[in-house]
Amino acid sequence: MTAEIISIGTELLLGHIVNTNTSFLSQKLAEIGVDVYHTSVVGDNPMRLTQAIKQAVHRSDVVITTGGLGPTVDDITIETIAALVGKRLILNKTVLKDLKDYFKMRKTAFPRNNVRQAMIPEDTKWIRNRAGTAPGLIADYRGKIIVCLPGPPREIEPMFVNDIMPLLIKRSAPNWIIKSRTIKIASGLESLVNNKVKDLLNLKPPTTVGIYAKLGQVELKIMSKAKTGKEAARAIALIEQKIRSRLKDHIFGCDHETLEGAVAGLLIAKKKTIAAAESCTGGLLSSRLTDVSGSSKYFIMGLIAYSNEVKKNILCVDSEILKKYGAVSAQVASQMAVGIKLLAGADIGVGITGIAGPTGGTRTKPVGLVYIALAIGSKLIARELKFRGSREEIKFQSSQVALDLIRLNV
Amino acid sequence: MTAEIISIGTELLLGHIVNTNTSFLSQKLAEIGVDVYHTSVVGDNPMRLTQAIKQAVHRSDVVITTGGLGPTVDDITIETIAALVGKRLILNKTVLKDLKDYFKMRKTAFPRNNVRQAMIPEDTKWIRNRAGTAPGLIADYRGKIIVCLPGPPREIEPMFVNDIMPLLIKRSAPNWIIKSRTIKIASGLESLVNNKVKDLLNLKPPTTVGIYAKLGQVELKIMSKAKTGKEAARAIALIEQKIRSRLKDHIFGCDHETLEGAVAGLLIAKKKTIAAAESCTGGLLSSRLTDVSGSSKYFIMGLIAYSNEVKKNILCVDSEILKKYGAVSAQVASQMAVGIKLLAGADIGVGITGIAGPTGGTRTKPVGLVYIALAIGSKLIARELKFRGSREEIKFQSSQVALDLIRLNV
Repeated sequence: MTAEIISIGTELLLGHIVNTNTSFLSQKLAEIGVDVYHTSVVGDNPMRLTQAIKQAVHRSDVVITTGGLGPTVDDITIETIAALVGKRLILNKTVLKDLKDYFKMRKTAFPRNNVRQAMIPEDTKWIRNRAGTAPGLIADYRGKIIVCLPGPPREIEPMFVNDIMPLLIKRSAPNWIIKSRTIKIASGLESLVNNKVKDLLNLKPPTTVGIYAKLGQVELKIMSKAKTGKEAARAIALIEQKIRSRLKDHIFGCDHETLEGAVAGLLIAKKKTIAAAESCTGGLLSSRLTDVSGSSKYFIMGLIAYSNEVKKNILCVDSEILKKYGAVSAQVASQMAVGIKLLAGADIGVGITGIAGPTGGTRTKPVGLVYIALAIGSKLIARELKFRGSREEIKFQSSQVALDLIRLNV
Repeated sequence: MTAEIISIGTELLLGHIVNTNTSFLSQKLAEIGVDVYHTSVVGDNPMRLTQAIKQAVHRSDVVITTGGLGPTVDDITIETIAALVGKRLILNKTVLKDLKDYFKMRKTAFPRNNVRQAMIPEDTKWIRNRAGTAPGLIADYRGKIIVCLPGPPREIEPMFVNDIMPLLIKRSAPNWIIKSRTIKIASGLESLVNNKVKDLLNLKPPTTVGIYAKLGQVELKIMSKAKTGKEAARAIALIEQKIRSRLKDHIFGCDHETLEGAVAGLLIAKKKTIAAAESCTGGLLSSRLTDVSGSSKYFIMGLIAYSNEVKKNILCVDSEILKKYGAVSAQVASQMAVGIKLLAGADIGVGITGIAGPTGGTRTKPVGLVYIALAIGSKLIARELKFRGSREEIKFQSSQVALDLIRLNV
């Protein structure tokens, strides 16, 4: 079974809102084995909406529209669908009562405009909206299904999950199930990962691997289509094993796992405590280390040492070293790591210094130059990095490399 | 002039990522008076992509694609466009040199895969990518323009603004202009704002006002359509004046201004320095204060004092106070503010302590309870807040209130 999503609303075409409904619906459809090859957006225009639905019905089994079910004259979905399928609009008394109850519960007079939302095409199934006013619709048309959902995400989500998904599962009788697994690598280099798994990226269905580059992170998504969930899981496990054997400890986690979560898990398991001294990241590393609930178990303190005075007076960075190598140097990063480790009495100290830009760069020390050091037991590790991007992007990539360095050395 | 946006990528159809590029491009196109009637998404499939582009070229003057320009075999945009417009792909030496320089700067071997990104259709204009590897393309086809942009937002945005918008403005000569202005208020005062501007929210085109509630922030968006930019700007200025006279210093900025930017501007203008002592926000306030370029002018230091020991030993929080009121109290927040102010020798000290959750709450001190204190000169201001949401949401709202408190008192 294939489905197509048409989002309706001029506010989407003007870019006033981001289309999160389409990604939500796409995810849910993939989960129940319904393929989506096209999604689109049209404005509040009956002619263009009719054309879009006709085209969608032609090439897909199910057409799902979102939006345009409100009480205003801009909301044209129901009229358009009724005209397309050739049905009269009839006032539905149950829907009208629902609407009146909705406003009564809110102690608000019933706005006359909202009567429009009770006009349902003759002989057409409607769906109660438990989170708003506009009911949904399920219309049969030339052997295909047209589903109309409201626009607000909080209304769409329960309606789709409770009322539409069971129907689609029943109608599609999918003889296969899709499962997926995302393998995550912290590092900005898509091409390096790409080279290691190149052959796997060419796999043909039912099991495929895709590569996705994000800021400071690469993800490999394994998808498998099979008759049973067990079979799909087995096919995924096989590929995952291959990927793991090639990328080894470059991989920090899977699916919804985060890098900070992986680091937290290791610190807790190994009963290690940590403290961070940050300059160019300005507290972002500490903030990410404390994004994990229960972080007080391992995080002792963070210090954002922006000025040389703070570096010297609180972290005991050597004035001579500061003068000789400059604040942005491997030497200073290392002394910051050792300094915060001692000050906090932690097992691990992290020091970060660099130039986040956009100003402050020089020819020898350009924007994006960052030094990260780790003092762990008696070991001292330092790295030189060169990042590109905005100030926030350089900060984020620095925190990403620092977290990965902790993960690999704790 | 009409434009149509086609986003390319199976990851979009699977709902793995939200399509923010389309909203960005739609907004920018509206600003220069280019109408968008359709946007769509297709997967990494040459046949469906070809069909989508053909249809778009048929009904729109400009077709903008995003994505599918990466170095992997999944990336099919260039080959598809070249086949469609009937041009050979030729290795472009300038692009190849750009690519090699990109990797050289990162001290990384040039991955052979990336040679693909230097293959440009014959006689076709390409656009340098200043934030990544894939160049953009501008192809003429049957009197229409096809523009190919990369997928990552950080690459698309500068390329579109610097290279594509000027070209479209030159070619389009629009007969009306849309302008907009967003007025920003920090804090969750949606209903207060709503009450103060209720009448403006009912304005009819050509000038309208919308209200958008975000986490810890409310935005009022004024939009105006007019024959000239000047006329639209005048209509907007009139409404803005009304809004400002009603909301006064609740407003922290406009359009792309951020709360941290507003705070930074005030601190620099008033030559004040600041230091932060954070507990539950874990460095997020410091990170936001240092997200602004030039923050070393006002930001002296931050301390993330998670444990009571750090609060006592470094911030000189009184043991008796800690015992009597607990770490999450107005008293401790105030002592943290004073402590960091003295330690840093700053003009302003901020102290934050609270329970970010999801665990750690009690009946008297539930998750979401946060105390924020400001020590400024000899003044001491403390606030008790009760937030709802996830750990990250509570951290963000706390940092938002702290920034706004600084803004109103510096």
